[in-house]
Amino acid sequence: MAQPAPNEIYQFSIISALMDGVASHGIPISSLLAHGDHGLGTFRAMDGEMIILDSSVYQMKADGSIVPITSPDKVITPFGVVTRFEPTQRVRASISGKGDLAKLLKGLFPGARNHFVSIRMDGTFRKIHARTAGGQERPREGMVSVASRQTTYTFEDVKGTIFGFRCPEYVMGINVAGEHMHFISEDRLRGGHILGFETEGGVEVGVAMASRFHMELPTEDEEFNEAALGLDSKGIAAVEG
Amino acid sequence: MAQPAPNEIYQFSIISALMDGVASHGIPISSLLAHGDHGLGTFRAMDGEMIILDSSVYQMKADGSIVPITSPDKVITPFGVVTRFEPTQRVRASISGKGDLAKLLKGLFPGARNHFVSIRMDGTFRKIHARTAGGQERPREGMVSVASRQTTYTFEDVKGTIFGFRCPEYVMGINVAGEHMHFISEDRLRGGHILGFETEGGVEVGVAMASRFHMELPTEDEEFNEAALGLDSKGIAAVEG
Repeated sequence: MAQPAPNEIYQFSIISALMDGVASHGIPISSLLAHGDHGLGTFRAMDGEMIILDSSVYQMKADGSIVPITSPDKVITPFGVVTRFEPTQRVRASISGKGDLAKLLKGLFPGARNHFVSIRMDGTFRKIHARTAGGQERPREGMVSVASRQTTYTFEDVKGTIFGFRCPEYVMGINVAGEHMHFISEDRLRGGHILGFETEGGVEVGVAMASRFHMELPTEDEEFNEAALGLDSKGIAAVEG
Repeated sequence: MAQPAPNEIYQFSIISALMDGVASHGIPISSLLAHGDHGLGTFRAMDGEMIILDSSVYQMKADGSIVPITSPDKVITPFGVVTRFEPTQRVRASISGKGDLAKLLKGLFPGARNHFVSIRMDGTFRKIHARTAGGQERPREGMVSVASRQTTYTFEDVKGTIFGFRCPEYVMGINVAGEHMHFISEDRLRGGHILGFETEGGVEVGVAMASRFHMELPTEDEEFNEAALGLDSKGIAAVEG
């Protein structure tokens, strides 16, 4: 397969399907990696948070353990978003949370108000507030119910990397409107889905806007077919925002 | 450029942008044709309805005229949706409107409840109720306002072709949830955006489901960047449903 074009977004399935508990099937993570080297997502039965950095894939579980995925062809993902990340702008910045980040992105990409942006931040964070999903207790258990058993962590003065996307408002339901980012520490021992963060002095920020978006839907998946995939903006914002 | 894979959906821009009057710029229609041979869309300033059949492109204008687009590299579209159409099922069916069509699609593709479906119908229609958009009177005039000046037609006992898509509910805002179809008569003298239809006896129906969706957003387009592209489901349903 040809190398994917840089900074296009590829995603498998949609966030509404996860919300509705569609997480039993999916594609091998190797198929995600064919479309990008950076990304995020989840695992079968929503068992933890996925982060992909430089084509290395990690499963960050609710018990706090981090599992490197060494055989991506053997592990299934029901939802993932990736890009072949080539930052077009790099800055060093001190950032206190998502509001600050939004301002920074607006300054860097004044023409990307309605576009996707991929974001990577490397450095030391004074504080990372993160969560890891604990997994479904039964097939089709919805994300709101799953999230009630999530584990949340606060890491302080931790060196590591945040990667994620800022999606335009109109993709709500397909993906998460606004910032959706995951974190993993440099020693690969801690991480999760970002709820909040604050840098310690400056961190290296690399960003790229994306104007091409590719979506692949699950096929021959009864769960996906049966799901009522209407728009639950409030639910998504509550669990993923 | 390699031939696109069959039955994937490619679209340029999003329907919310049109709703908000973003229609001054776009891509050459030849770029749309690189991604598919069947489709629909509109023209700069929403001047009429576009239908693409077997790579032939027609502009159906509010004054009732139909203009074949013979130089697709010289004509701009601000919004278009195409597919390289290879029907996987063909049936002969008698259909009275969108409700009937929805039932037929459900029977043909029980596993496509949350997927895209491309639809082509060839034959004689007892009745076609269609509209053609009259075009913006000023840049950024929104679609609801433009639609207030649309021309509607009822064609009776007319031979021709309907082509369009059924989109899943969760793409509302990006595209139109439900059926979105255009019609052109066999003599290429009449046509428009389908509001309603009824077949005369049976017509040939060719359909294909799509699980891959590609979206390209306008870049360096101030109108697109300035637009507030929140979700206006009711507005879209009123104008495009």
